[in-house]
Amino acid sequence: MSYTAWIISIGNELLIGKTVNTNASWLARKLTLLGYDVRRIITVPDSEEDEVEVFRDAIKRGIRVVISTGGLGPTFDDRTSEYLAKALNRKYVINDEALRLVVETFKSRGLELTEPRLKQAKMPEGAKPLPNPVGTAPGIWVEEGNTIIIALPGVPAEMMAIFENYVEPRLREMGPRLHFVEKSITVKGVPEADLAPIIEKGMKMSNRIYIKSHPKGHEIRAPLVEVHVYVSSEDIKSAEDEINRVLNFLISAIREKGGEVLSA
Amino acid sequence: MSYTAWIISIGNELLIGKTVNTNASWLARKLTLLGYDVRRIITVPDSEEDEVEVFRDAIKRGIRVVISTGGLGPTFDDRTSEYLAKALNRKYVINDEALRLVVETFKSRGLELTEPRLKQAKMPEGAKPLPNPVGTAPGIWVEEGNTIIIALPGVPAEMMAIFENYVEPRLREMGPRLHFVEKSITVKGVPEADLAPIIEKGMKMSNRIYIKSHPKGHEIRAPLVEVHVYVSSEDIKSAEDEINRVLNFLISAIREKGGEVLSA
Repeated sequence: MSYTAWIISIGNELLIGKTVNTNASWLARKLTLLGYDVRRIITVPDSEEDEVEVFRDAIKRGIRVVISTGGLGPTFDDRTSEYLAKALNRKYVINDEALRLVVETFKSRGLELTEPRLKQAKMPEGAKPLPNPVGTAPGIWVEEGNTIIIALPGVPAEMMAIFENYVEPRLREMGPRLHFVEKSITVKGVPEADLAPIIEKGMKMSNRIYIKSHPKGHEIRAPLVEVHVYVSSEDIKSAEDEINRVLNFLISAIREKGGEVLSA
Repeated sequence: MSYTAWIISIGNELLIGKTVNTNASWLARKLTLLGYDVRRIITVPDSEEDEVEVFRDAIKRGIRVVISTGGLGPTFDDRTSEYLAKALNRKYVINDEALRLVVETFKSRGLELTEPRLKQAKMPEGAKPLPNPVGTAPGIWVEEGNTIIIALPGVPAEMMAIFENYVEPRLREMGPRLHFVEKSITVKGVPEADLAPIIEKGMKMSNRIYIKSHPKGHEIRAPLVEVHVYVSSEDIKSAEDEINRVLNFLISAIREKGGEVLSA
């Protein structure tokens, strides 16, 4: 079983640079900590052609978990649910359970059930709605072959509430039960290029470890580099042993080069 | 001539949710203001398979401008230049001009020219290096068919400095010379679902206009929605006339619904 994941961000506001895609990094973090391997984050416009293509591509590749954000709202261009039905070659129908959720929400707040609101109860045939504790649009959980597609709203508070309450527990259940451990050190006085061979050696100490350098200061005049080490493992004890072993190597190699390790 | 653009973000740190992709939104904004139509933002890992695939995909589709960030540094997994050569089916060679830039930078600062540093002078055959005013890795400008591929470093200060000095002027020169105008209003007291039909009418007033609502408050208890209107046009006067005409319509329709327009 592979535990690959894709995140699909839908919305013109992302493509014109009006909005920074914090939803994607939040979801990427969550999925990584659950042991899933996020292979791609793709931002597409609110467009039938693009949305259908990217959902179909993920299914064709057998990506295990695909999470989309955006396009579930009540406005004319919020059509993720409809395009998802098309991508799946399924009917786009009123979902009884979703209708119940939507009607409940509106009744309890004394609001009218207008056409744009009713739209939020329509889903691909065979989908399961995910209750929205914060807004009105339910999320969508639908499976096709080996792939689970989860469509969430783009409003961060709604996306997070649905994910934490109705998605995360199920993904943890069916996930690889991997632990993800990470540590960072900040290195002063060694340019990134001189750290490169040390990092390469560290990487070779374990095939479950990944090390990445991130320059923070001025590369040449005042080199300051964050070295980020992460490892995933089935048991947390061995992950921690592994990361400490590699970190100890890195720290002594950096000091030998005359570097200063500011935080560990 | 089409003015499509893709942004390709390269780096595992983005896919594990360690880093928020501010580079992509910064570039998306810049490209949009230059009149380019950003059709996709794709984040891929530091991996040969993924990088080659996504560059080839963009070329095959004839995307006009493709900008990548990341993978130009000195460490073992910074291999965007090499993978780009592969995607182009070109040799990966020392570029004389890039070598001159790299050697100059290091000499002037009294640093050794090590192997990882020399790597930064290697590029796909036929590429033009873009000087890096802030760091050591030059950017890459390479053309293939109808597509221009521009590879920039992932460090934001370096990415921005290269873009503003050596990319933006050229893209403006060859661009559509479109003006992009936008305005936002904040609406209190009308839920997004009730704004939907008003927005739909506004959209139909012009085919150069795009309107998007962004819920900010609590959808039901205290609806607060930002309505963002943008328009592109060859001349700035007609763009502004257009946006004002649509905004006036929106504001009066919202007031008729009992909504309050907080800022315009």
